[in-house]
Amino acid sequence: MGMGAVVESREWYLASYAPQGVPNSKHLKLRTASVSLEPHSIPDGHLAIQTLLLSIDPYIRTRFTGPNNLDGLYFPQYHLNQVITGVGIGRVKVSKDSKYKEGDIVLVFGDLPFAEYSVISSTKVSTKIDDDAIALPNYLSCLGVPGFAAWISLEVIGKPKKGSNVFISAASGAVGMIAGQLAKLKGSRVIGSTGSDEKVKLMKEEFGYDDGFNYNKEVDLDAALSKYFPDGIDVYVDNVGGKTLEAVLNHVNKQARIALCGMISQYDKVWTERDGVRNLLNLIGKEVRMEGFMIGSYFNLFDDFAEEMKKYIKEGKLKPKHKINIGIETALDSLNSLFTSSNIGKVIIQFNA
Amino acid sequence: MGMGAVVESREWYLASYAPQGVPNSKHLKLRTASVSLEPHSIPDGHLAIQTLLLSIDPYIRTRFTGPNNLDGLYFPQYHLNQVITGVGIGRVKVSKDSKYKEGDIVLVFGDLPFAEYSVISSTKVSTKIDDDAIALPNYLSCLGVPGFAAWISLEVIGKPKKGSNVFISAASGAVGMIAGQLAKLKGSRVIGSTGSDEKVKLMKEEFGYDDGFNYNKEVDLDAALSKYFPDGIDVYVDNVGGKTLEAVLNHVNKQARIALCGMISQYDKVWTERDGVRNLLNLIGKEVRMEGFMIGSYFNLFDDFAEEMKKYIKEGKLKPKHKINIGIETALDSLNSLFTSSNIGKVIIQFNA
Repeated sequence: MGMGAVVESREWYLASYAPQGVPNSKHLKLRTASVSLEPHSIPDGHLAIQTLLLSIDPYIRTRFTGPNNLDGLYFPQYHLNQVITGVGIGRVKVSKDSKYKEGDIVLVFGDLPFAEYSVISSTKVSTKIDDDAIALPNYLSCLGVPGFAAWISLEVIGKPKKGSNVFISAASGAVGMIAGQLAKLKGSRVIGSTGSDEKVKLMKEEFGYDDGFNYNKEVDLDAALSKYFPDGIDVYVDNVGGKTLEAVLNHVNKQARIALCGMISQYDKVWTERDGVRNLLNLIGKEVRMEGFMIGSYFNLFDDFAEEMKKYIKEGKLKPKHKINIGIETALDSLNSLFTSSNIGKVIIQFNA
Repeated sequence: MGMGAVVESREWYLASYAPQGVPNSKHLKLRTASVSLEPHSIPDGHLAIQTLLLSIDPYIRTRFTGPNNLDGLYFPQYHLNQVITGVGIGRVKVSKDSKYKEGDIVLVFGDLPFAEYSVISSTKVSTKIDDDAIALPNYLSCLGVPGFAAWISLEVIGKPKKGSNVFISAASGAVGMIAGQLAKLKGSRVIGSTGSDEKVKLMKEEFGYDDGFNYNKEVDLDAALSKYFPDGIDVYVDNVGGKTLEAVLNHVNKQARIALCGMISQYDKVWTERDGVRNLLNLIGKEVRMEGFMIGSYFNLFDDFAEEMKKYIKEGKLKPKHKINIGIETALDSLNSLFTSSNIGKVIIQFNA
């Protein structure tokens, strides 16, 4: 597998679109391709990469929907028969760009193939990773997409203060666990919702949430929010949308802010069948700002974000939880675990080296 | 009726709450009371006022709903058997505050009784009106609540620029007609929706809208917005909520801004029966900010607003339209005209002097 070899590389490709529901083995399939690592076969400005880690994120599911059903979905669709892509970390095997050399570890935002080996443009690399004090999976969680999303939700949109009442849905997930810890670092009172008692326990004991509840048990969300927020909600980081967002709108305080980070409860339905939110009138009376965002529009703030987060990690103030599944063959199950609420923390695939 | 007299004063009072539907003569009734204008009967710091003009606004309807049904309604409820109140202009008949004298014309924001005569605290007076160059009804339209709401929608929240695509619902109403003209003054392309062909004509010919449509004819709102906004919507001033807001969300551009000014289509329903908006996911993908507001939180900007608007009025750049109904007895019909879309422009009651 050294330079000069042609390697076998397993890769996930899109076999058919999934307009609704959770993708399964009809939609995503694994195949084996050959990738040449001969330097003369790598174009200038490109890198041959051996994948080390891949980030499994809810938005990936929205890229399987198919071109006819995209209302409100905002990432480009994958193409049939082509390898799917995402965020990941790889080792440079061959470099045709003088900025990188064999052995460099690189973070690729958004376009790293779900493959053991691949050849990509060096412009896809976001950053070279050279800080040994921080373990690699952190670059896909607190220092990566979910961490940045959590940071924007709070620093740019939600702006909680000391004593603010903050609610976070999918609170033990990749974004939620970071958002919760960041809000605690601001001195806020932070409550989260999640899908199991085990995760509620984790949120309180490891992530430092003041309290939390299992939405599968608290079937009356409105009553649950009355109980956990007797003084109302000042900041909501929404990762789920739908009925939870609607319930929150009945509990917002004056000039509350809602950061719309994701709506995992809504992705697998056509828009006319999504949950209608009936109480937007609260946004007027309570003078609420509700704002959606995509991290791509905030890259000018990425260095500020990374600096702050690295400091917290090194000081032990931020404790991410990673669910690391071993082997490229776990990708489909890993993705599905996001939708069955069976994951805890950031789901990452670690490749067999 | 000079100083020292006791005058008969007709007044509208709340006879019963209207949890749903448009209020009628069972809910609002007219009666005659006696008001003493004897100086010794007026408390210190108070004024005896003869009402000249009253503003008829959609939010008034939300104050009839009754205390058990308030989800999302944001103004205090009127009390049974008590005189209802609103925004209006009056003449001081007796002053027990050295800042005002008999004959002063004063603007009262929010708590002027719907009565021919009343005694109010001088702290309720927003401003003494002493600019003869501006006709009084303007103080209830472009220089009053609807004008300020339109100005905040655009200056603070929507921020349209030259060439922005701006959509305004209830576009010939009190807020809409001002918002449309202000957006045109910024150089935007402005399209409005309203309830009759006559009003579409007025919008284009008098208010300067680039185009507009009658929502009673364009029953497929989505198709209408595709037609009128081939390049999408950058700024939406929402006065109606519900299905119109939902349709707009299918046409928003990247980083569009939605100012939630009012939701007249939703006021007369309990919240669980209001229209559910199913496509909030667009707020994420398009990175949209949607923000509700109440003018009371922006009074620090009122002088800036008034200065800008007076300049436009004197330069003839802003042409408000007033529907002036004569006599206190027209209040109920005037209010109902807002909900049957039979009004044009700002509805004002002018009292018989």
